Amino acid sequence: MEPLGIHHLGVAVTDLDEAIATYGRVLGGRLEHRALLADQGVEAASVRVGSGRVELLAATGPDTPVGRFLERRGPGMHHVAYEVEDVAAALDELAAVGAQLVDERPRSGLFGLQVAFVHPDAVHGVLTEVVAGG
Amino acid sequence: MEPLGIHHLGVAVTDLDEAIATYGRVLGGRLEHRALLADQGVEAASVRVGSGRVELLAATGPDTPVGRFLERRGPGMHHVAYEVEDVAAALDELAAVGAQLVDERPRSGLFGLQVAFVHPDAVHGVLTEVVAGG
Repeated sequence: MEPLGIHHLGVAVTDLDEAIATYGRVLGGRLEHRALLADQGVEAASVRVGSGRVELLAATGPDTPVGRFLERRGPGMHHVAYEVEDVAAALDELAAVGAQLVDERPRSGLFGLQVAFVHPDAVHGVLTEVVAGG
Repeated sequence: MEPLGIHHLGVAVTDLDEAIATYGRVLGGRLEHRALLADQGVEAASVRVGSGRVELLAATGPDTPVGRFLERRGPGMHHVAYEVEDVAAALDELAAVGAQLVDERPRSGLFGLQVAFVHPDAVHGVLTEVVAGG
């Protein structure tokens, strides 16, 4: 697989409004999108930092993936997403090299993107996403 | 402050050779630089993933910053670095907005870069670096 580059850094936060304000004040971040995805237990904001992008993730409750992450590790870096041209093709290539996948098929992610997650065990402890359409 | 974008993602690993090989096999990563910095207790490799960059960090021993990180949290994402034109000017702007700094002045980082670290408490738990010269 040959990703195009880093699409975004995913960061778990406890207070989304405060985090958006902090990224604006400290790092000149500009809010790009914001969405509540109740079924995924997350409220998310995409913030541009120069040409880079940070996805801020707040949990809608404790018994959600981001809620459990925050309980276990506290706020901080959650995942990195690499941009690819085609998520299905990337998954085929990842499977061909034996990488352990969280998602066997592309699925709808935040902000209308097509995404899939690779298991952290495949990438030395880093939860890794591949994303297209951004 | 208005960074240019994400310069690199810093990742702590237990085995640098194996991590370089994994990033190559799984993510098409290309080794850009590699250096042993005994005084900082770290051996590091810069790996390009498309236009992105991952800095893999291995500890030279347990009683080093990366060694303590690995002991506490295990392998995984360690910091994010934003590229700026001028690290000293960025530090002035960060101080002006009250951001807690690890480095009050620019210092020499890996691979000949000028760097400074911002305290994780200033950015919702994310150890954040500003870097110029890359």
